[in-house]
Order: sequence, then C-alpha cells, then structure tokens
Amino acid sequence: MTDPAAALAQMLGPKGWLSGEEAEPYRQDWLKRYGIAPLGVARPISTAQVAEIVTLCCDAGMNVVPQGGNTGLCGGAVVERAGGIILSLSRMAAIGEPDAASGSVVVDAGVILSALHDALAPHGLVFPMHLGAEGSARIGGLIGTNAGGSHALRHGMMQNLVLGLEVVLPDGSIWNGLRAVQKDNAGYQLRKLFCGAEGTLGVVTRAVLKLSPAPKQRATALLTLGDSAAAVAFGTYLRGEAGEFLTGLEFFCDFGLSLALKHLPGLSFPLESRGDVHVLVELTSSSTRVQLDDILASALEWGMERGLILDGALAMSDAQRAHFWRLREEQPEGQRLEGEQLKHDISVPVGRIAEFIDKGQALCQGILPGVRINPFGHLGDGNIHYNLSPPQGEADFAGKAPEIAQALAALATEMAGSFAAEHGLGRAKIVLADRNRSPVERDLMARLKHALDPLNTMNPGVIIANPSGKKNFPMNGIS
Amino acid sequence: MTDPAAALAQMLGPKGWLSGEEAEPYRQDWLKRYGIAPLGVARPISTAQVAEIVTLCCDAGMNVVPQGGNTGLCGGAVVERAGGIILSLSRMAAIGEPDAASGSVVVDAGVILSALHDALAPHGLVFPMHLGAEGSARIGGLIGTNAGGSHALRHGMMQNLVLGLEVVLPDGSIWNGLRAVQKDNAGYQLRKLFCGAEGTLGVVTRAVLKLSPAPKQRATALLTLGDSAAAVAFGTYLRGEAGEFLTGLEFFCDFGLSLALKHLPGLSFPLESRGDVHVLVELTSSSTRVQLDDILASALEWGMERGLILDGALAMSDAQRAHFWRLREEQPEGQRLEGEQLKHDISVPVGRIAEFIDKGQALCQGILPGVRINPFGHLGDGNIHYNLSPPQGEADFAGKAPEIAQALAALATEMAGSFAAEHGLGRAKIVLADRNRSPVERDLMARLKHALDPLNTMNPGVIIANPSGKKNFPMNGIS
Repeated sequence: MTDPAAALAQMLGPKGWLSGEEAEPYRQDWLKRYGIAPLGVARPISTAQVAEIVTLCCDAGMNVVPQGGNTGLCGGAVVERAGGIILSLSRMAAIGEPDAASGSVVVDAGVILSALHDALAPHGLVFPMHLGAEGSARIGGLIGTNAGGSHALRHGMMQNLVLGLEVVLPDGSIWNGLRAVQKDNAGYQLRKLFCGAEGTLGVVTRAVLKLSPAPKQRATALLTLGDSAAAVAFGTYLRGEAGEFLTGLEFFCDFGLSLALKHLPGLSFPLESRGDVHVLVELTSSSTRVQLDDILASALEWGMERGLILDGALAMSDAQRAHFWRLREEQPEGQRLEGEQLKHDISVPVGRIAEFIDKGQALCQGILPGVRINPFGHLGDGNIHYNLSPPQGEADFAGKAPEIAQALAALATEMAGSFAAEHGLGRAKIVLADRNRSPVERDLMARLKHALDPLNTMNPGVIIANPSGKKNFPMNGIS
Repeated sequence: MTDPAAALAQMLGPKGWLSGEEAEPYRQDWLKRYGIAPLGVARPISTAQVAEIVTLCCDAGMNVVPQGGNTGLCGGAVVERAGGIILSLSRMAAIGEPDAASGSVVVDAGVILSALHDALAPHGLVFPMHLGAEGSARIGGLIGTNAGGSHALRHGMMQNLVLGLEVVLPDGSIWNGLRAVQKDNAGYQLRKLFCGAEGTLGVVTRAVLKLSPAPKQRATALLTLGDSAAAVAFGTYLRGEAGEFLTGLEFFCDFGLSLALKHLPGLSFPLESRGDVHVLVELTSSSTRVQLDDILASALEWGMERGLILDGALAMSDAQRAHFWRLREEQPEGQRLEGEQLKHDISVPVGRIAEFIDKGQALCQGILPGVRINPFGHLGDGNIHYNLSPPQGEADFAGKAPEIAQALAALATEMAGSFAAEHGLGRAKIVLADRNRSPVERDLMARLKHALDPLNTMNPGVIIANPSGKKNFPMNGIS
C-alpha cells in the first residue's frame, strides 16, 4: 500500500500539502489547550480535490479534521489522534456575484468573514454576521460551529443564514444542496444538520448565504446601568418598542471594564458614571424614512425616567461608534491579559439573565471564595460569556475549574438554557454534554454520527466521544 | 400475544381509542387522494401515553401515523399500510403561560394555530405564523411539515420559530429538548431535524415557540400591476426601503381572481383596473414612532411613477384589510370549485419569479395546449403555488399530470429552487424527489431515517419510500 502522506503530497503539490515545520501553525487550537502534530495539512483548491482527500483518508483509515480560521474556543479543529490530517480550505475563497434581487450569494467555505463583508459593500448588501474573530474566521468554520455573534438577536445564527450547502461526505461523495431559497421542504432539513456539526458529518465546501439590504442609518448608545436586572428590564422595553431596528444589544460588567482599561493602552471609558453593568445598544435601518435617532433617544429617556439608566452617550461619529464597540469586544482580551481564566458560554431565556448572574455568582463564590466574575455578552439573546479570573493574588483556580463548569452548566440547564450557547462542544465540552443532556439526546446524536460517518473518519472525538459504543447501538437497533 | 387493538382500547379508554365508524373522519387526506381505514385512532392525553402507544406499536410491528389538523396537501398524515394506527394529539392542547420578558411559550402539539393566536392576544405577543388553514392546523403538524405561510418572509418558517421540542422517538423513549433559547450549540441541531420530518422520525408532543411583540400598527395595500416582472421589481424595492416592516407580500393573477369572483358569493374586487398580477402588501410595526402609512404611501408612489403599479388602494379599516386578504386566501377555494386541478408548490429565488412564471407557462402549454395556469402565493419569499385547471371545456388533464409536475420540478431545480417549498413531500412527491434530487441526497435522508427508526415504525412510506433498501445500506456502511 502506498504511503498515504506521500500520496497526498503528490496529489496536492507543495502548496497543497504542508508537513513538518510548515504544518506547525495549524497544530494547536486558539486557547492552546489541544492539538498534536498532524500528519500534514491538506490545502485543496476545489471540491473535487476535497473529495479525493477524504476518499483517500477514508480508505487509509486516517482521520480528517477540518480547520477554518482556527478561532474556535472548544478545541474542535485540531488533531488529537495520531495519523490525522488537517483539512484547510483557505485556498478555496471565491465569492460569487451577489444576487441583489434575491438577496443571496454563493461563497466558498474558505472565505474569511470580513472579506465577505468588504466584497458586499459596493452592492448595498450585507451578510449580517458579526463577531470578534471576523477578521480570521472562515465561512466553513462559522457554519460548522453554527456561529452566533452580536447580530444574532436580529438576524439569527448561521443556521438561519444558510440557504444551501455543498458538503463532501465522509465517504468522499459530494452532496450538492446549493439551493438558494428559504422554502425547501423536500425532505429532512439537511442544510440545518450540517450547521453546528463541527465537521463531524462532512466537510462544508460551499454555501449559499442569505443577504440583507445594507443599513442606511445607524444609532448607537453606550449606557451605564445599576445592575443586570435594570439591563434586562430595559432590553425587554427595547425589543417591544424598537425591535424592528435592534441589531445589537450587548453588555459587560464593571469588573470586565476595569480589566480592559487596565490592560489595553489607548482604551478609555467615555461616560462620567460607572455602574455594575454597561450596555451597548445599536439600532439600524435600511429605510430612510425612519427617525432612528429619535427612536433611540426616546427609549433612553424612558429608561432614565425609570431610573434604569444612570448615564449614557449617543455615538456622534463612526469613530465614536467604533470605540463603543471596542469596549465590548475587548472584554475577552482584557481578561486574557490579566492571567489565568475560565470561559463559560451560557445561554438562558433573556428575561432570566439577571437571575442567572445572581445565582451563578452565589454558586461560584461557594466553590471558590473570592473568584472574580466577568459576565459579558449578548443581552439581546440571553448569551452570557460567563468568564472567571482567579481570586485576587491567586494564579489559578485551585483545581476547582471542573466543579465550577458543572455548577454553571447545571444552572443553565435548569433554567431551560444551554452550557454551549454559540461556541459548540468541540472536545472541551463533551463531559458537560454527557452530564447535562439526557442519555436519549446523546444517543440520538451518536446515531446521527454513526449513520453518516460509520467509520468515524471525520473529526473523531468531537461532539461524540464514542459514536459506535455498544450502549448506543444494541443489536436490535432499539435502545 | 394480546390483540394490539384491544390493548390500545384498554390503555386509552373510549375517548382515547376510536375505531370503525368513529375513525372514519381521520381516514382520508384533505385532498381525498390517500388513506385506508386505520386499525384505529389513538387520542392520548399525555406524553407518557404517547410513549406507551409508540412502544406498543413498535413491539407489535404496527406502524404509527401522526395526524395533526389533517390539512396537509401531500398525503403525509394518513395510513396507507394495513394495520397502521393514526395518532392524533387533539386532546393534548394546553398552552402555557407566555414568558413575555423572554418571548416564548410552551405549547402542546395538539394546539390549533388560531387558538394560540387568540391566547396570546391579551399578552401583547404574537406567534407570527399565518396560513389559510390556521383554524384547523395544529402545532405538531406545522412542525412536522415545517410550515411556511404568508409571514415567513419576515419571521421564517416553523424551524425558525421553534426553540425547543419534546419528541417521542420511534422506540418509545422521550427526548426532552424543551429548551427556550435560540443559542444552543451543544451538538447537532436536533430541534431543526424534527421540523419537516413529517412524523417519520418520531412524534412531536410539545414545543417551545418563539414569540414576537404584537404589532401596534399595520398598513395594507391591494395593487394591480402589469405583469409579474413589475411585481418582482416592486418587491425588490420594498425589501430595500421597508424591509423591516414587510410582513406580507403576496400575489395572485387575474385568472385566479376571476375564478374566486365567479365561485365565491359576496367576494368583490375593489380596484377599478385589473391587470395580469395583483399584489397584497402588508407592513406592520411594533413601534409607535414609525409613520407606517407614509412609508407605504411613498413606496406606492415610487411604483406608480415608474409605471410598475397601475392601480391600488390602501385599506382604510380592518374590514377592508380582511377583504384584501380574503381575495388572496380564497385563491385555492375558487380554483377547487372550478373543477379538477393540479397543485404545485414551487419556490425559486425571489428575483427569478417572473422568469419561472414565463418559462413554466411555455412548458405547460407545450405539454397540454390550453391548460389554464393560476400562479399565486408568496412574492416575498419566492414561493409560488403554481396551480392548473384543465383547458376550457375539458374535465381533466388528459393524463399529462405527471409530465407537467416533472417539467415544473425540473425547472425549479435548475433555478436553484424547490418543487416542495412549504407543503413537504408526504407520499405525493416522493417520485419527484427521487427524480430531481441526487442519489447522494436521497441516500443521506434514508440513512437518517434508518438511524432513528430502524424498524420503520413511524409513518412509513412518507419522505422515504424504502429506508432500508440495499442500495442505501451496503454492508460496509459506505455507498
């Protein structure tokens, strides 16, 4: 039998097959917690080449790990089993001509999100997905992780923005589902199944994405509020009175603000008063006949009259707007620079955010007194990045990380929420999934994985640790 | 072995188990094309009872066909194999207290859509799904068929409105996925998979639905346009300038209007001029600070100045608004009363609707000269109910129905659209699916079905004719 690495090298050429030192930049995940040296990195230039690679690996019993921009936080895009290869679609980055009349565009999976934003700008169209990593995250990875981000409250997650897909399946066959319509009920919703599958069911190679008209106006405010209950109350009012325009509703707390101001030179806080919670509101409209500034100002007035809003400023320029957003988006970086940290990606129903923050604090302090809690994220859809720094003066979490993670996961679960809101399970959260989701649910997922990837070629060990375990597949097919 | 029917009768009691004459109303589908007498109709009152029923049927080798309001058009909710039972959740119709702060509600699958609308009204909330059958369609059936309807352009289909699900699986186990958050990426998107599965993967028993604030204002217009190209151009403009408010954008043609006026006493057309195409526009807003009438009036002015709109009227009262909607919604009934008909449920990218209508007409006339074409539906999302009446003076389609259906399906497919836009495949469209979708895609669906329902207990013969066919499952698990 031919050496599979040699066969891949020959198939793909020197630009298409990286090994040794050249493969090193692909080895570890973003948080540097996972990853062994891959056999190599395949960088195909076409769907046909992807299919050839997957077929070869399937035949050779090698595992294939698709990697997009490698900005994921759960270790789902690096090799952990010897002999695996990384599949990077970075050379497949074509953006089709947008169909303005229909509001869609066909893109390769290797397209970087911000490159798509730039390409659409001259057409008066937007792809309304925004997140901190947009300068490096690729469409394929965003689909694989069903990314959410800061505009999801209005436009939904990737699964709401994907009309059609092309996927290379684990056996090397190509599924062409590149349709460009919302309404397609010809059988199971395959396009949804691949959103969030983290490359375990196949490799997304192309997508038809849904576009929106570009906003013609924008109104942004930065606010100080007394506590998270006030933030929730104001958010509820905003969704009712300005829901059609509400594109961003983000929050961060004063501890997170302190860390960002301490560690990031040039960052400043423009309001006079600080409070427990800071909120960023952004309204946008593609209509010129809407008085967006008035609508925002009137909502702020409502909040101030009721004592919910303690201080606030409207962005008077794009530079100021960008500065407001930076205060929110630098939250992870500020905390990273403070030292050790624990990240939790929680969602709860939006009306219960304050309750989660209060109960979560009691739980965390009970487990590790003095732990410093930094909740921030998406007030508009209940997604809290509930991150922790060690107690002041401590370097780490005294071995309490798993206990804290489980306590928060159980709380989110009890509140009809999720412990894996927008970052996925990857490898990092399989233990939480096994503990907090029912055996019935975990078995359903194992069955899906086994049905589409019976040889466990695609990204093994992600989402499902053991898809062909006896527990999941008794001989009579019924469990 | 106990007689399964006797066991079900004993388990469910006289209200819970109908047979003989009592089962007759459940036998046939809406269009009276499918259905044999079921062994009986099970009407459970709890999820636990649903699970008992499914377990019993699974053990006895009997098939289970979930039936909602039985308003489906593809024959997916009636028994076609001897010994099957119908499972009706009509006695499971509880509506939970809506969570206004979070925008969600928990409902039983047997809830009728219009009952949910009524229950939400006092809370200032809406469930934004509207379709002709809303007075009889049940939530379970709407989820099973991934219903779309006339508000889908703004709010999406059922799969966009379902946050969480409870499902009794084919082996009788219960999956509790009743979470109430949009952002839940803890593994595969199971909640999406059951939307549109037409009861072939399990029985949806409860759901957490996403709610929106109730509109505080509404502006509605009925228009006459010269042709479908004008309608598409005006629709594109509206999506750009008033997209945030655009809740309905419907069309019907003059032939359909004639049929409705001819057959439905009391229906009248309020505009002076008629044209090839009539359009209904509805804008809504939950904000009081938007001049909705002005926005609509200005859009109409734009259309009239360009000669796209030939005539139009704004609804001046709720009665008038209801009359405008009735003109659109009576399209199917007017055609039904004309005699024989063929229904096709097409979607194409919205910018290509006019192209489809033109090309479709040429195809149909080529196959059956004189056939009378009545396209109507959802201009805003590209969903065309492309229905036909026989040539004037003829009673039927001269055996050409399959040829016409395939020609239209092939055309929609070629245009990146679907031949099963919002009604599903059921039994009626499996032949079209097998002809117009790739073997790879059909095999993927068969694998999913086999993985979740290996004994083919749930609604056999729907979506997939032969889920365990040798073709789909070669011994090595790879095809």
